[in-house]
Amino acid sequence: MLKFCRETALEQVAENHWQGHITPDWSIAGVPNGGYIMALGARALQAALPHSDPLTVSAHYLVPAQPGPVDCQVEVLRRGGSSSHGCVRLLQNGELKVLLVAVFTDLAKLQGESRINAARPDIKPYDDCVPLPLPDEFTFSRQVIQRVNPEQVQSLAGKPSGAGCLSGWTELADGATTDPLSLLLFADSFPPPVFSFYGPTGWVPTLELTVQVRGKPAPGPLQCHFETGYLTNGVLEEDGYLWDCDGHLVAISRQMAKFRLP
Amino acid sequence: MLKFCRETALEQVAENHWQGHITPDWSIAGVPNGGYIMALGARALQAALPHSDPLTVSAHYLVPAQPGPVDCQVEVLRRGGSSSHGCVRLLQNGELKVLLVAVFTDLAKLQGESRINAARPDIKPYDDCVPLPLPDEFTFSRQVIQRVNPEQVQSLAGKPSGAGCLSGWTELADGATTDPLSLLLFADSFPPPVFSFYGPTGWVPTLELTVQVRGKPAPGPLQCHFETGYLTNGVLEEDGYLWDCDGHLVAISRQMAKFRLP
Repeated sequence: MLKFCRETALEQVAENHWQGHITPDWSIAGVPNGGYIMALGARALQAALPHSDPLTVSAHYLVPAQPGPVDCQVEVLRRGGSSSHGCVRLLQNGELKVLLVAVFTDLAKLQGESRINAARPDIKPYDDCVPLPLPDEFTFSRQVIQRVNPEQVQSLAGKPSGAGCLSGWTELADGATTDPLSLLLFADSFPPPVFSFYGPTGWVPTLELTVQVRGKPAPGPLQCHFETGYLTNGVLEEDGYLWDCDGHLVAISRQMAKFRLP
Repeated sequence: MLKFCRETALEQVAENHWQGHITPDWSIAGVPNGGYIMALGARALQAALPHSDPLTVSAHYLVPAQPGPVDCQVEVLRRGGSSSHGCVRLLQNGELKVLLVAVFTDLAKLQGESRINAARPDIKPYDDCVPLPLPDEFTFSRQVIQRVNPEQVQSLAGKPSGAGCLSGWTELADGATTDPLSLLLFADSFPPPVFSFYGPTGWVPTLELTVQVRGKPAPGPLQCHFETGYLTNGVLEEDGYLWDCDGHLVAISRQMAKFRLP
């Protein structure tokens, strides 16, 4: 089993109760990445619900998770024909850290109209993008290949571009095929685009993150684009867009985070 | 008490348990509006939590609500110094209809950097916008004044513009001052912008809606803009932006909804 699957794997210990282990290998500045936590929690819902793919997952992050054991307590809210709803509480030492509410479905059975009404961001070819310059102590960077548009990389090296966005490519370093659960990880994987205003100022804690999954990705690296339009009184949204390497939209996300200058 | 306050008012019947009444006066095609339901549920959180303003509220709509009594069962998830977390279940006849998870805060105390990195949509002056042409049987339209950019109104009259957006002005018809809870209503108040592709096709059911509240609005009508960028296999997002009449951003929203041609 490859690293992402292994380190989000859960063991059922009772009805609606799973246990997992948050490893220290998906951390940014010592804090486990929110997308990693969301993917781990979603595995419990995947196990408990009759549908296997996330359609939309919302996470509220109450207290930062820590590496170590985690209890996932699932409540099945509704079982339907084409979709089902559930929530899962992630607790460590009895303390509620994260709450997820989600709709699961069978993505392959989605059908209906399609229409794109948004300008495609300018994502440079994979080989023209450059590796994200992240500190070695960010263990997350060892698990996820992240390549950014070359003209945006200066924002992360202390010369903010002012663009409000970061774009590029991403994939798991373990070579795992990108599955819908890994999209939850990738939706929170890039550095905050607010860094393009102020440089890499430090931790930008996510309060809430919702990921809409639109389809199963083709094998290969994902194209991604993250942007922040409105920073108001230290509160911002970060919108994410993920396409597979064939150019199909596979997920969009929006989060609320807090921003403080150091 | 004015109509919006009166018809979202709750009575506490036990610890963490409030009761309200969903009236038939906020319905679209017979279904109570999702923003109205969110505002009603948020009143229970406002009563239960130590902070009085919504900062971010996420709703999952499992089953359409109906006019009639509603039970609001609150769970306080975390009480913090500057913010608090809670969830509330809205049940009718014992059936879970809607689940809200929210962060509450004191909006007046938010402080930090502000930076806008988004083009301002072209919202015409109030008097240049025209009333939304909605059927008389949509009781919602009697409670909420809605004025739309004149060049967009054709989309709702069977001549789709293809623009993917709807913009204009909105306020409560009862003359109530716009408070942060009413922003939850307004975030789901305009017709779906997908109608600008296909015309008014019918109900576009919301699966999930998250509203980020950014500040208390100045008195007066709100400017609003709603857009859909990605409709894929019958699934779409709708992004909403609300400014007060002084031009300050007061809320942004994103929802996932299902779209079917008739």
